[in-house]
Amino acid sequence: MARINSHYLKLAAGYLFPEISRRVDEFSKAHPDAELIRLGIGDVTQPLAPAVIQALHDGVDAMAELSTFKGYGPEQGYEFLRKLVAEHDYGPLGVKISPSEIFISDGAKCDSGNIQEILAADSTIAVADPVYPVYVDTNVMAGRTGNVDENGRYQGLVYMECREENGFLPDPPDRPVDLIYLCFPNNPTGAVATHAELKRWVDYARDQNAILLFDAAYEAFISDDEIPHSIYEVEGALEVAIEFRSLSKTAGFTGVRCAYTVVPEALQGKDDAGQDVSLNSLWNRRQSTKFNGVSYPVQVGAAAIYSEAGKAQVRETISYYMENARIIREGLNSAGFDVFGGINAPYIWLRTPSGHSSWEFFDSLLNRANVVGTPGSGFGAAGEGYFRLSAFGNRANVEEAVRRIRSGF
Amino acid sequence: MARINSHYLKLAAGYLFPEISRRVDEFSKAHPDAELIRLGIGDVTQPLAPAVIQALHDGVDAMAELSTFKGYGPEQGYEFLRKLVAEHDYGPLGVKISPSEIFISDGAKCDSGNIQEILAADSTIAVADPVYPVYVDTNVMAGRTGNVDENGRYQGLVYMECREENGFLPDPPDRPVDLIYLCFPNNPTGAVATHAELKRWVDYARDQNAILLFDAAYEAFISDDEIPHSIYEVEGALEVAIEFRSLSKTAGFTGVRCAYTVVPEALQGKDDAGQDVSLNSLWNRRQSTKFNGVSYPVQVGAAAIYSEAGKAQVRETISYYMENARIIREGLNSAGFDVFGGINAPYIWLRTPSGHSSWEFFDSLLNRANVVGTPGSGFGAAGEGYFRLSAFGNRANVEEAVRRIRSGF
Repeated sequence: MARINSHYLKLAAGYLFPEISRRVDEFSKAHPDAELIRLGIGDVTQPLAPAVIQALHDGVDAMAELSTFKGYGPEQGYEFLRKLVAEHDYGPLGVKISPSEIFISDGAKCDSGNIQEILAADSTIAVADPVYPVYVDTNVMAGRTGNVDENGRYQGLVYMECREENGFLPDPPDRPVDLIYLCFPNNPTGAVATHAELKRWVDYARDQNAILLFDAAYEAFISDDEIPHSIYEVEGALEVAIEFRSLSKTAGFTGVRCAYTVVPEALQGKDDAGQDVSLNSLWNRRQSTKFNGVSYPVQVGAAAIYSEAGKAQVRETISYYMENARIIREGLNSAGFDVFGGINAPYIWLRTPSGHSSWEFFDSLLNRANVVGTPGSGFGAAGEGYFRLSAFGNRANVEEAVRRIRSGF
Repeated sequence: MARINSHYLKLAAGYLFPEISRRVDEFSKAHPDAELIRLGIGDVTQPLAPAVIQALHDGVDAMAELSTFKGYGPEQGYEFLRKLVAEHDYGPLGVKISPSEIFISDGAKCDSGNIQEILAADSTIAVADPVYPVYVDTNVMAGRTGNVDENGRYQGLVYMECREENGFLPDPPDRPVDLIYLCFPNNPTGAVATHAELKRWVDYARDQNAILLFDAAYEAFISDDEIPHSIYEVEGALEVAIEFRSLSKTAGFTGVRCAYTVVPEALQGKDDAGQDVSLNSLWNRRQSTKFNGVSYPVQVGAAAIYSEAGKAQVRETISYYMENARIIREGLNSAGFDVFGGINAPYIWLRTPSGHSSWEFFDSLLNRANVVGTPGSGFGAAGEGYFRLSAFGNRANVEEAVRRIRSGF
């Protein structure tokens, strides 16, 4: 008798983005002439860098000739790309990462979702609240939680609240945990962590023998020289942290699919007998068994972001998005909103006005300004009363959205 | 204290292909002038079809313009590709599959490895022996087995032996099981199943409320009109089977990455309370949460295999490989080997001569003919004394390999 993984049934029913789609569809049917501006889902809008386009074409052309055709690539990614990552993404930070510590993948969502597989089924998990839902849902599906309560919180998870009072920078848990998901620059709050702040986490992890699962998908949006781009800029982090990075937002790859995860050789977990086991070797085994590597043309395209031309083009697009962020932040500020993030991060996090709930504000923003955003409560109980806007739109849309919000609220 | 998933430590030492690589590297270092011919790993060698190359370029060009740029695609794959699959891969078989039952992915290895996640942790699993190792290893990693014995068999798994005596077509298990992995045309034995043979499995699954996990990655190599291409050609299979397909071997996509899995709406599993739950909805949730869709240019490229030109070009390459299979099969036959498969499948399965073990034959083939193959024992205990050769080489290499084997053995 085939039975299902019943943990799936614990997942909270209305997942955030489908519910947004439903309300937007309903509104559009009722108001077919309304010109909606979508600043909800964090998806890029600008074309790929010309250097990347050229490299993708080159990668495709290689597949057309017997002498350059590529079959299965290494599950861990091609050496040429792993070397570029080590050299260009970590070298300048003074962080020594070897190519064998870098695993090229098709997405940070996949990696941050799959990483829990190599860790014990009864691990205690700490997550921020609000939080990127993938960290939570993948642990629910793996059976590491109990049921969900009326606030959307799962029994057994340790929630670390991010509120205005703590600058959206939570304290480490007050009890021992095994795994801690962190995301800086943060999705959804746009908060960033200083070196001193990250050091608190590394210290905690070293003290408690915990592992930090550090999502740095938005590091390219950091403009402040004082803010670390990698957890590994903190001494000792190589022994306690896994880092996820992505080309999705860095280089507009949301539709192309390329990311990578760093699992340092120095990072160990304990087996049931208390012996050290290399997490690098476990992740390597996981990827070799369940993954077949990233598309060859995509890896050639990804390598182009490390060329001189590619770097400059990618930086230009990031500046474009960050100018969007400035326009949203300052526009809403001058309209009287309390606004957070949007300086070293592509997300603007705002307090909903007049004590409205996140979904109430979603509906009034949709109705009065025809702008779609993301309710903060969709990211967790502590996100209630907040709202996320994304800076990834086209400039004209962003400017129009701000105009409408300023005149409508 | 972060602890690992200790089930990983049960995995038999080296995954097959890394161990082959290790031995080949060692041999190459000792014999730098040897011209190796690789017929081991089942990897394609011929360039992509011109229609696919053109479509990949078109897909890349779309990413260069604001008006055609694509960000996140549907996690389930683009509708245009799902429709083509339903229409061209199932329509001609008289099998009605809707696009919502098709999930585009980056590989059948990933899908056949991940599918077990949506099923109960204490499911009883049946696999063929010999078997594609991914089915076994992913269940070991998920904790569905005990330890491995000296033959490489895991406690708790039900092994269905494929031997010469049963034509490499095992009987259904003699006890109730929940999940059965099947692969036809078979990797590694090259055996195929008739309609009557598949009907036995569907009948068993319906009787026992078991689910068939049917790997049809090699269906494109079937030339015999009597052999079904899909499990769904058997009446009633839509209620008991999930089918995996891949463009890897069909269209040379091992380095490009595109596959799909069919999870019929009619397929149900039981929850802990004995209620029916749609496996289609569970797989949809799994993919939405842990996967972000296949690269857009890759999906555009995949769609091209369904064009008139693409179909003809893809068929031509398959004929090329199947001519290789004929050359290997007949060549070895006339050299006195007992040879199986290689008619409706790109794999040739041979009995090792003089009672040599699979690895002994691997080493002697490497040393005496400089040909790399795959030891049958790497696919399971019942593969001991057998050996797999792949038909995916270049013609000249295949011919030379056969010449060397005939003169060396």
